[in-house]
Amino acid sequence: MPQTPRLDALVRDIAERMAAAEERGRVATYIPELACIDPARFGISVCLADGRRISAGDATRPFSIQSVSKVFALAVALGRIGDGLWRRCGREPSSNAFNSVVDLELEGGKPRNPFVNAGAIVVTDAILAGRTPKEALAEMLGFVRAAAGDDDIYMDAGLARSENLTGHRNWSLAHFLKSTDNLLHDCELTLGTYFHQCAIEMSCEQLARAGRFLAGLRAEDDLISRRNVRSINALMMTCGHYDGSGAFAYRVGLPGKSGVGGGIMAVVPGVASIAVWSPGLDRYGNSLLGTQALEALSEGMGWSVFNVG
Amino acid sequence: MPQTPRLDALVRDIAERMAAAEERGRVATYIPELACIDPARFGISVCLADGRRISAGDATRPFSIQSVSKVFALAVALGRIGDGLWRRCGREPSSNAFNSVVDLELEGGKPRNPFVNAGAIVVTDAILAGRTPKEALAEMLGFVRAAAGDDDIYMDAGLARSENLTGHRNWSLAHFLKSTDNLLHDCELTLGTYFHQCAIEMSCEQLARAGRFLAGLRAEDDLISRRNVRSINALMMTCGHYDGSGAFAYRVGLPGKSGVGGGIMAVVPGVASIAVWSPGLDRYGNSLLGTQALEALSEGMGWSVFNVG
Amino acid sequence: MPQTPRLDALVRDIAERMAAAEERGRVATYIPELACIDPARFGISVCLADGRRISAGDATRPFSIQSVSKVFALAVALGRIGDGLWRRCGREPSSNAFNSVVDLELEGGKPRNPFVNAGAIVVTDAILAGRTPKEALAEMLGFVRAAAGDDDIYMDAGLARSENLTGHRNWSLAHFLKSTDNLLHDCELTLGTYFHQCAIEMSCEQLARAGRFLAGLRAEDDLISRRNVRSINALMMTCGHYDGSGAFAYRVGLPGKSGVGGGIMAVVPGVASIAVWSPGLDRYGNSLLGTQALEALSEGMGWSVFNVG
Amino acid sequence: MPQTPRLDALVRDIAERMAAAEERGRVATYIPELACIDPARFGISVCLADGRRISAGDATRPFSIQSVSKVFALAVALGRIGDGLWRRCGREPSSNAFNSVVDLELEGGKPRNPFVNAGAIVVTDAILAGRTPKEALAEMLGFVRAAAGDDDIYMDAGLARSENLTGHRNWSLAHFLKSTDNLLHDCELTLGTYFHQCAIEMSCEQLARAGRFLAGLRAEDDLISRRNVRSINALMMTCGHYDGSGAFAYRVGLPGKSGVGGGIMAVVPGVASIAVWSPGLDRYGNSLLGTQALEALSEGMGWSVFNVG
Repeated sequence: MPQTPRLDALVRDIAERMAAAEERGRVATYIPELACIDPARFGISVCLADGRRISAGDATRPFSIQSVSKVFALAVALGRIGDGLWRRCGREPSSNAFNSVVDLELEGGKPRNPFVNAGAIVVTDAILAGRTPKEALAEMLGFVRAAAGDDDIYMDAGLARSENLTGHRNWSLAHFLKSTDNLLHDCELTLGTYFHQCAIEMSCEQLARAGRFLAGLRAEDDLISRRNVRSINALMMTCGHYDGSGAFAYRVGLPGKSGVGGGIMAVVPGVASIAVWSPGLDRYGNSLLGTQALEALSEGMGWSVFNVG
Repeated sequence: MPQTPRLDALVRDIAERMAAAEERGRVATYIPELACIDPARFGISVCLADGRRISAGDATRPFSIQSVSKVFALAVALGRIGDGLWRRCGREPSSNAFNSVVDLELEGGKPRNPFVNAGAIVVTDAILAGRTPKEALAEMLGFVRAAAGDDDIYMDAGLARSENLTGHRNWSLAHFLKSTDNLLHDCELTLGTYFHQCAIEMSCEQLARAGRFLAGLRAEDDLISRRNVRSINALMMTCGHYDGSGAFAYRVGLPGKSGVGGGIMAVVPGVASIAVWSPGLDRYGNSLLGTQALEALSEGMGWSVFNVG
Repeated sequence: MPQTPRLDALVRDIAERMAAAEERGRVATYIPELACIDPARFGISVCLADGRRISAGDATRPFSIQSVSKVFALAVALGRIGDGLWRRCGREPSSNAFNSVVDLELEGGKPRNPFVNAGAIVVTDAILAGRTPKEALAEMLGFVRAAAGDDDIYMDAGLARSENLTGHRNWSLAHFLKSTDNLLHDCELTLGTYFHQCAIEMSCEQLARAGRFLAGLRAEDDLISRRNVRSINALMMTCGHYDGSGAFAYRVGLPGKSGVGGGIMAVVPGVASIAVWSPGLDRYGNSLLGTQALEALSEGMGWSVFNVG
Repeated sequence: MPQTPRLDALVRDIAERMAAAEERGRVATYIPELACIDPARFGISVCLADGRRISAGDATRPFSIQSVSKVFALAVALGRIGDGLWRRCGREPSSNAFNSVVDLELEGGKPRNPFVNAGAIVVTDAILAGRTPKEALAEMLGFVRAAAGDDDIYMDAGLARSENLTGHRNWSLAHFLKSTDNLLHDCELTLGTYFHQCAIEMSCEQLARAGRFLAGLRAEDDLISRRNVRSINALMMTCGHYDGSGAFAYRVGLPGKSGVGGGIMAVVPGVASIAVWSPGLDRYGNSLLGTQALEALSEGMGWSVFNVG
């Protein structure tokens, strides 16, 4: 891995520039607990194939991973029920916002993909599979900890409870799914599980480590099949940033998934796993500086999967 | 390139299986000239970094490349006017069909991306730039010939004239664009150029060679910048197969562009340029067997950009 | 009113033809309690300006008025808060189904009109106005009884409870409204009230009498202002039959409101108030035979407001 | 007709208030010839059953009736081919703008109703029926002249030619219709006819007289059947003011049709035919002051068909 010296300097430089950036986006306000996060935060962490880790900024400070959790949930669900999942959920990008109900109605209750909220709720419902939310959440948290190789990862139950009370758009989506028989459990069960899963807290260092299985960096990797790795990476590329997915592919060129907490997990297949965090969002709900940082990193290292050398 | 022996056998095997396939999709009927193409045709050609070429089936028989031409047009346009193009055209996937007017109206006349028909018409309009259609077409054809290293490539003027008379959906799109001031020239000029560009005829061998600049296979490559290569590959990945782009990324994992004539051009960055052809289409307008062939090839060679080894 | 002899015969004839009709539509199945209503039922009742009443068929058998209740709720709400209601709800027809979420998302949480479900939920929310559901329901039921001059009208609490558990599309709409701050109360309060209001049971005779205030047939009428009568009639004409409102206006030419229980209330301004009931619905959710009966009645009597003699 | 003295004063009063109004809406600019009309103009004319006519303001000055012509075209088409027309065109209001393509695509090329542009183009196409545009236009102009009892009515051929060159949204609609086989003639023929029909010029006095057949004011009326009168009135009520039709029904309560030239024709069935004109439009493309004038007139005279006395 001869580029690590250069990578070191690049990561430091990016962190410095992002810390100093003036235009930082807008912190999500619709989840009250997230609204009071300091927008000045920025963290980045990169795991390489040789096991080295390069971090900078607020890389060890935990944040709410929110929709990044959809990637881990999808990994668990594909492991459990395989391609049968696609009978209940599509694999196509959406032109509408992450919390849109429009697609759902137009397509008879089948979400466009597993990374819009409606799709992720279906994925969580598939993981539940008759078990208690506690059991399903234990499996998901266990998966994340195993992926990160770190048991010091928890859910913010208070945030989950708050979302349960105020997350009306997600309740709207869940009841719509239920009305079309695309939810096996009561809305309360599935959504209760979903809100907890979104409330997992991780630092950039933990998240970058947890993403290694998608980059093929774990020699021992038996978490999920290589085929499922490929599938998840493809979905992150085409759908991982909602209706800003095309621009992310264009600018960064890596499979990645954003969360409304300001985190983004991205992978360079075979080469690196990356996590960035900055709470201010762009108009699609993706971290503004996080995206800029990934763009600079991908450009500087020639890491885009669309690169030709 | 140690895998070429294996590749040789794989390509032959794929061609045999595709020739024998029973379910072959439906040949496009809305362009009368295309409706009478023999659905039994199947061709495949692969160009590798070391200059080797492996072909099978009807690989030397010319077909109408139709929307595959949008890739070459985009390359020419980006070279001419660069990122200014994105003021007139988006870079996001569309949930609607390739010839949809809905997105155009919802977004005030700005096409979702350069690979839906509306976007491609804008790209052609940008290439015209005050010149005559003849001059613009000469530039585009020159680009394709240079890319393929083959001057024996022509446009089917009869097909273009037929499209001019019967391609009412494209006329509808062009007049809509004109009504929102997103067309610099008369509809007749821009659309006349567009229909001719779509009527370029190439064989799989020619098309695979013409795609080499997107895979970085030409040592001498000065056709377009590396940055534009990356951009075009990203757009092919997220938008290259219309509202079936997500499934293509999931199954094949390569940047690619399909045409209603049954051709698909795909690239493995740094490794290979591929062309397949089979006239029967799936419900999104992409070659049914062409997609299956690329899926088998990508799977067999581990060529998906989302692969981790 | 010289036409009453003719009216008598016409009503009897219509009832006979409707009782014998073979194609009767499909009884709504999404509300379990309604699914087991006998589709052979047909009732009709007409109140005239001179106080006479002409009925035929199952005119005294109570049925669930469901969405016809939206008319009474709107009358109460307009009386309470007047035109301020239109800040929260539009007055335009919708191209989408009665339970659609699409319009709601496209218009930022403002329902198209008070007769689609989303709009009716907002109207009920406006009637609640800080009171308990019991108080609001007492007011609505009181209004209906006063309008009908009949205290023997009740709500089916069992049906309301059932809807509360299974009416997921309405829950989806309520939570969507809540997410856009267009619901003043908790979803549980507003929707609990709404489901009870929809579960009012009336016979055709009661419903026809209850509609007299919209036809100006009550000498003593102080239920609502003449201006509000006009407003409600206009809304029934343009929006009273969901996405089948245009066809109803075309065929029947009278302000009317349908319910998924198979009832329709219609008025001939200054002349008559009409109720019909037949449980089988057309594809828009309106009573198939009820509409045919009104068409025959309006045609036979020359009652369309669009008639020129 | 005892109310005529009161009507006289009311019409004069309305004309005075409208002439003095400050907020006058915006004159349509997308048709260059209309953009230079003086926004200070206001005219009104009312025809009564007893043959009396009451006018005020610019009631004798001709203006371009534009979409008001769709009413006369529909009358001609219904007379020619009857209900068969509804196989090609719906009868439901649209949530979208008068020149929208969205509905057309969603409904496979069948316009929502005959008063949105797409529907009116289909109606014109049905009138053509293999004849030359000249013959079809002669029939339409003949119908209008017969309805008005006035041969001094002409088309502005210059305006029609201008629209032919610049009316790209209508060209977009026509080609879309052609692509779905819902246009029998070449776009050039149908649209050429349509643009001429829209370019008919009439004064308020002429237009009010021409509307008498829809109000049943002509003793000798054999222009169209009573059934077709009723049908056209119903469609004007639900669809006559585009996506502002609901508000027009609510405020005015009369069947009416607006044109982008600022004219509105409205009828009080059995009582009166009305024309108003003021060039400034509201955001739906309907005359701002024209609508206000009709609201005041309907309110003052108790003319709403939804009125109960």
